[in-house]
Amino acid sequence: MGNSFGKVFKISTFGESHGKGLGVIIDGCPAGLPIDEAFIRQELQRRKPGQSKITTQRKEEDECQILSGVFEGKSTGTPIAIVIMNTDQKSKDYSHIADKYRPSHADYTYQEKFGVRDYRGGGRSSARETAARVAAGAVAKLFLKHIGVEINAYVSQAGHIKLDKPYQELDFAEIEKNIVRCPDPEVAQDMIDYIDEIRKNRDTVGGVVSCVAKNVPVGLGEPVFDRLHADLGKSMLSINAVKGFEYGSGFEGVTMLGSEHNDAFYMDGDTVRTKTNHSGGIQGGISNGEDIYFRVAFKPVATIMKDQDSVNQAGDQVTVSGKGRHDPCVVPRAVPIVEAMAALVLADFVLLKRLNKLDV
Amino acid sequence: MGNSFGKVFKISTFGESHGKGLGVIIDGCPAGLPIDEAFIRQELQRRKPGQSKITTQRKEEDECQILSGVFEGKSTGTPIAIVIMNTDQKSKDYSHIADKYRPSHADYTYQEKFGVRDYRGGGRSSARETAARVAAGAVAKLFLKHIGVEINAYVSQAGHIKLDKPYQELDFAEIEKNIVRCPDPEVAQDMIDYIDEIRKNRDTVGGVVSCVAKNVPVGLGEPVFDRLHADLGKSMLSINAVKGFEYGSGFEGVTMLGSEHNDAFYMDGDTVRTKTNHSGGIQGGISNGEDIYFRVAFKPVATIMKDQDSVNQAGDQVTVSGKGRHDPCVVPRAVPIVEAMAALVLADFVLLKRLNKLDV
Amino acid sequence: MGNSFGKVFKISTFGESHGKGLGVIIDGCPAGLPIDEAFIRQELQRRKPGQSKITTQRKEEDECQILSGVFEGKSTGTPIAIVIMNTDQKSKDYSHIADKYRPSHADYTYQEKFGVRDYRGGGRSSARETAARVAAGAVAKLFLKHIGVEINAYVSQAGHIKLDKPYQELDFAEIEKNIVRCPDPEVAQDMIDYIDEIRKNRDTVGGVVSCVAKNVPVGLGEPVFDRLHADLGKSMLSINAVKGFEYGSGFEGVTMLGSEHNDAFYMDGDTVRTKTNHSGGIQGGISNGEDIYFRVAFKPVATIMKDQDSVNQAGDQVTVSGKGRHDPCVVPRAVPIVEAMAALVLADFVLLKRLNKLDV
Amino acid sequence: MGNSFGKVFKISTFGESHGKGLGVIIDGCPAGLPIDEAFIRQELQRRKPGQSKITTQRKEEDECQILSGVFEGKSTGTPIAIVIMNTDQKSKDYSHIADKYRPSHADYTYQEKFGVRDYRGGGRSSARETAARVAAGAVAKLFLKHIGVEINAYVSQAGHIKLDKPYQELDFAEIEKNIVRCPDPEVAQDMIDYIDEIRKNRDTVGGVVSCVAKNVPVGLGEPVFDRLHADLGKSMLSINAVKGFEYGSGFEGVTMLGSEHNDAFYMDGDTVRTKTNHSGGIQGGISNGEDIYFRVAFKPVATIMKDQDSVNQAGDQVTVSGKGRHDPCVVPRAVPIVEAMAALVLADFVLLKRLNKLDV
Repeated sequence: MGNSFGKVFKISTFGESHGKGLGVIIDGCPAGLPIDEAFIRQELQRRKPGQSKITTQRKEEDECQILSGVFEGKSTGTPIAIVIMNTDQKSKDYSHIADKYRPSHADYTYQEKFGVRDYRGGGRSSARETAARVAAGAVAKLFLKHIGVEINAYVSQAGHIKLDKPYQELDFAEIEKNIVRCPDPEVAQDMIDYIDEIRKNRDTVGGVVSCVAKNVPVGLGEPVFDRLHADLGKSMLSINAVKGFEYGSGFEGVTMLGSEHNDAFYMDGDTVRTKTNHSGGIQGGISNGEDIYFRVAFKPVATIMKDQDSVNQAGDQVTVSGKGRHDPCVVPRAVPIVEAMAALVLADFVLLKRLNKLDV
Repeated sequence: MGNSFGKVFKISTFGESHGKGLGVIIDGCPAGLPIDEAFIRQELQRRKPGQSKITTQRKEEDECQILSGVFEGKSTGTPIAIVIMNTDQKSKDYSHIADKYRPSHADYTYQEKFGVRDYRGGGRSSARETAARVAAGAVAKLFLKHIGVEINAYVSQAGHIKLDKPYQELDFAEIEKNIVRCPDPEVAQDMIDYIDEIRKNRDTVGGVVSCVAKNVPVGLGEPVFDRLHADLGKSMLSINAVKGFEYGSGFEGVTMLGSEHNDAFYMDGDTVRTKTNHSGGIQGGISNGEDIYFRVAFKPVATIMKDQDSVNQAGDQVTVSGKGRHDPCVVPRAVPIVEAMAALVLADFVLLKRLNKLDV
Repeated sequence: MGNSFGKVFKISTFGESHGKGLGVIIDGCPAGLPIDEAFIRQELQRRKPGQSKITTQRKEEDECQILSGVFEGKSTGTPIAIVIMNTDQKSKDYSHIADKYRPSHADYTYQEKFGVRDYRGGGRSSARETAARVAAGAVAKLFLKHIGVEINAYVSQAGHIKLDKPYQELDFAEIEKNIVRCPDPEVAQDMIDYIDEIRKNRDTVGGVVSCVAKNVPVGLGEPVFDRLHADLGKSMLSINAVKGFEYGSGFEGVTMLGSEHNDAFYMDGDTVRTKTNHSGGIQGGISNGEDIYFRVAFKPVATIMKDQDSVNQAGDQVTVSGKGRHDPCVVPRAVPIVEAMAALVLADFVLLKRLNKLDV
Repeated sequence: MGNSFGKVFKISTFGESHGKGLGVIIDGCPAGLPIDEAFIRQELQRRKPGQSKITTQRKEEDECQILSGVFEGKSTGTPIAIVIMNTDQKSKDYSHIADKYRPSHADYTYQEKFGVRDYRGGGRSSARETAARVAAGAVAKLFLKHIGVEINAYVSQAGHIKLDKPYQELDFAEIEKNIVRCPDPEVAQDMIDYIDEIRKNRDTVGGVVSCVAKNVPVGLGEPVFDRLHADLGKSMLSINAVKGFEYGSGFEGVTMLGSEHNDAFYMDGDTVRTKTNHSGGIQGGISNGEDIYFRVAFKPVATIMKDQDSVNQAGDQVTVSGKGRHDPCVVPRAVPIVEAMAALVLADFVLLKRLNKLDV
């Protein structure tokens, strides 16, 4: 249970870190969409390990293969299955933690919940599963591009290094120009230096990914439970290491007065617009045509290269010693994952909106 | 679409602010649960308007009636329908906004999405809908009490007035002793004074509700999408006026190092415990037996008693004049709603956990 | 669980035979549909007990009330809740079977499944629940009428009395002109006489309801599991007392050769048509524009006015004595129920079809 | 949409007849189940083409590969993905029908619904998709075996050749001993001769598959929509070429009197049993512990080796000429598919039953 996401643009993922393969079925992609495989591969490249000195040095090629649902370059309306076979399965690396519970990992909870677990590299709880999301999200992005929606995520905080500018002042074209994916080159360099220092200390640190969706049609989101921001929030909180989500004014908005916070409406030609956007583009759970804006908090990666106290399955006190090749800070690689999940949520609601009125 | 919540302990709500009635169907409550109607009424009392000087002075009796699913005082395993008839329907009050879009309300987005809307008191977008959630949440609480789970929410911030103590130092028995529902009497008084001042200024302000669940069994939450905190987050973000959600270390955790943030395991007799709880009781999306702890940000109520610029359906510039009886700050009445949604999420996962292993 | 039906035009029913009330929430009816309450009442009249000498003489007024989702006569896109309060609750009538298992009723299975049951009139297992379906189906019919779809069900067999004419030769305007709802007046009279005789013998008998949907758009049904006929079949099999479902050539089709059974295509102007319709209007699980045609088998009503051997909850051998006012044959009152469920399935797929292509 | 089945033991299938591969994700198989891969392969062998002279001579090896969800031979509670790569993709064979609508196939309806279709071998509408169901059904069977449930399907009719014996008199061990899968050797030979004759005439014929499930626990099935027989019916009607479903007394039961049809209860030691089983093991939609018994009608295969009139996409009159290697009668190969779907439905309800009562 729990491995599907979406209502009518629906994905189901499978796969463990060190199993034979992982992947996703997309059920509900409309027929006739040109499926650009190169774009899917490119999105996977943005997520893959080993891409820079501030990410894990682990090598995974993440070559995907589309098994179904595409014919002569277009989606057919039938399920699109995308599979990524695991090639770097070094299972032996993990025997030392087979019965140990790594602190702040899912080892203990999986063991208790299921009574059995694939301990190799975290098994299903590994962030490797997000590769499947990125592949599916790429298809969702292709659908959204068709209607003009554009999504950009970026790193706005790494540890204590913050990008304080409002998103309106940023040049999103800068995001992919540096390895930390922060659109401000100077702040980016500070972040890179800081993460590199953390890495050398064999430690890890958290960060924040911000995300902006532009040209979103009015009317996305289904009250009362499936509000646009509620589903965005769930999708983000379902990403490994995420600890918080806020949109528009977020937690800071609580200190504002209603008279400051309310977004006054005005007419921009024939279009209803708001003068401010504390609502983050969402009112009553439904998009209002303004930019969707939200922030996602990631905790420090749990795997550190230091000895830690813990217990094992037998209930003995043990030491867990950090090994392997891990990310000192997860946010640079989280950027495409945040975008993918946002794209999946928006694609879902774009389709659902077709059901709202008597006629289309 | 979008009016149901939960997977196997499932609720579906209905009703507009000024329609004939509102209510909820609970499908999936196990059979044999004693249904304490007085408790359901008591929970509704905690949410109802007019309960103190810092809430709206609107009077709604919120008398609920159970139509089905209970026989001789016990749940029968069939749907439990609870209905609350609307008695204070003063529809005339709303003619002045029939075609106006109130700033930061859902008027514009509902109109665009559906092409029609019940403008009386916000219709379906009114927070009155949460009465149905509180009734359903009361049933979920009864189920959770049966297995020993205890949920307490409280106001931890009202505008800039913060309760800074960690929850472990609070006496939850104090929560219901003051009208703002803050467990620290001194901070509570500051909050009350501040909200009252805001009210007198005909303005509104936001706040934060914190929530703690104790005695939660290990193993709740379904990876990878239906993580416990992802569903908690969605449930909270689906409440009117919520702008953010964080659990455990939350947004503050991003500046911590992995070596500080990781929760070391130790044995407490036969029980696996963690020395710290930055994880907020959830690891890998699954409860680990520690306290579940999260915070929910509420924006200032959009209805203020001041004139505001806006537009109407015809695209004319208009003035919206505040009328009626509204909350200056939503958080005191949000406390039982947060608890209700948390109870619904936990009850759902308690049942789903029965499906995880080969035998039960 | 199990009390909801439909994917995007979704209903959830509640209520027991002798509880306070029963009803339905419709979530997903598009906004802007004129809701003709008189039509809903009229459909309920067609299902209600006491309508003729060949139905139960029990009196239930089945007055429905719309609590939400309709504003100024039109659907608003929010949940439409319809409630029918029970007035004729004669609960005392049922004390004699409180602990007895009536043969071929759900008493034993409910008791075993839930460990508790509302024994009054069958509780949730009573066919009284279908009143909620008929109310919801009336709304679905209103939606289908808007796009020109017409559904007619009729009694084609009562016990051994069969209507042998193909549906194409029948005048559906005759259906409501006789109390058995058979469009052939002569066969109708035979059926009435036969059922009346059965009734006098204090026994019951089964029957078949046939159903035809005309002007159904091409493209309804979602392969591979949610084929149009699979969902129609499930919807019919979910009606009390149904034992079988077949569409198009059905069980008789198994003896045909492929060369006889295949429906040859031809052009009727610009329209693709088939010369025969053994497919019952459905090919590959998707409507092809021809008439949808299916048949539903109902068993004899289990409540008979004769003594029967049985056991009670304690495991003693007992006699169950028929009492009360029951239908000698269920099919006349089943006609509107079959239509209602067909309408719900078709409305669901009409909406889902909007999602199939890249653009609408 | 529509490519998933099941509520908590849930499958999602993908793949076209001549795409790269097909397969299934099983989400919800409890952890700890020994996964016997040889058994899965054996079930696929029972379905695969080319197994005898009365099935298609097409060769497909149907080698399956488990990509995830199994560790050290046991299910882990995470999704089990099973993939079958297509090796015999002879796509060239199908160019002659690229724009033609084969009578009683899904060519026309897919084209209209999606605006695009993979015409090779029927694409997604091909019965090749059922290989994925058989693989998933094998896993469900392993789970059911663990609790003692046994499912046997067999051919009870091929064209006009019927097996008239009640299932109680049959020796299910005979089913796999002949190529038509009929447990009566003499009738089996008649069926084989008849199908072979049909094949030589380049025609096809329909048939009936009967199915019996033994040792089914009391309490499976969720009223009111998800009745056990309603879900069984839907699952069967979702199989290619199925035209009807009946359980217990089925269509024949309609002529019976209530006094004949009711299944009297008696005590067999401590067990409540029924003297007859017209209910087919299901009362009120819930299993009662007696044998589950149902019948499934299959139409003649639409692909015949004869010329047929039809139209093409441009609206021209054309001739469709039969080519290739197809089944003269689908029922022998349908037997494992019927069993697979029955197993999936029962496994789902076995798990759901764990949710019915307050405690487990």
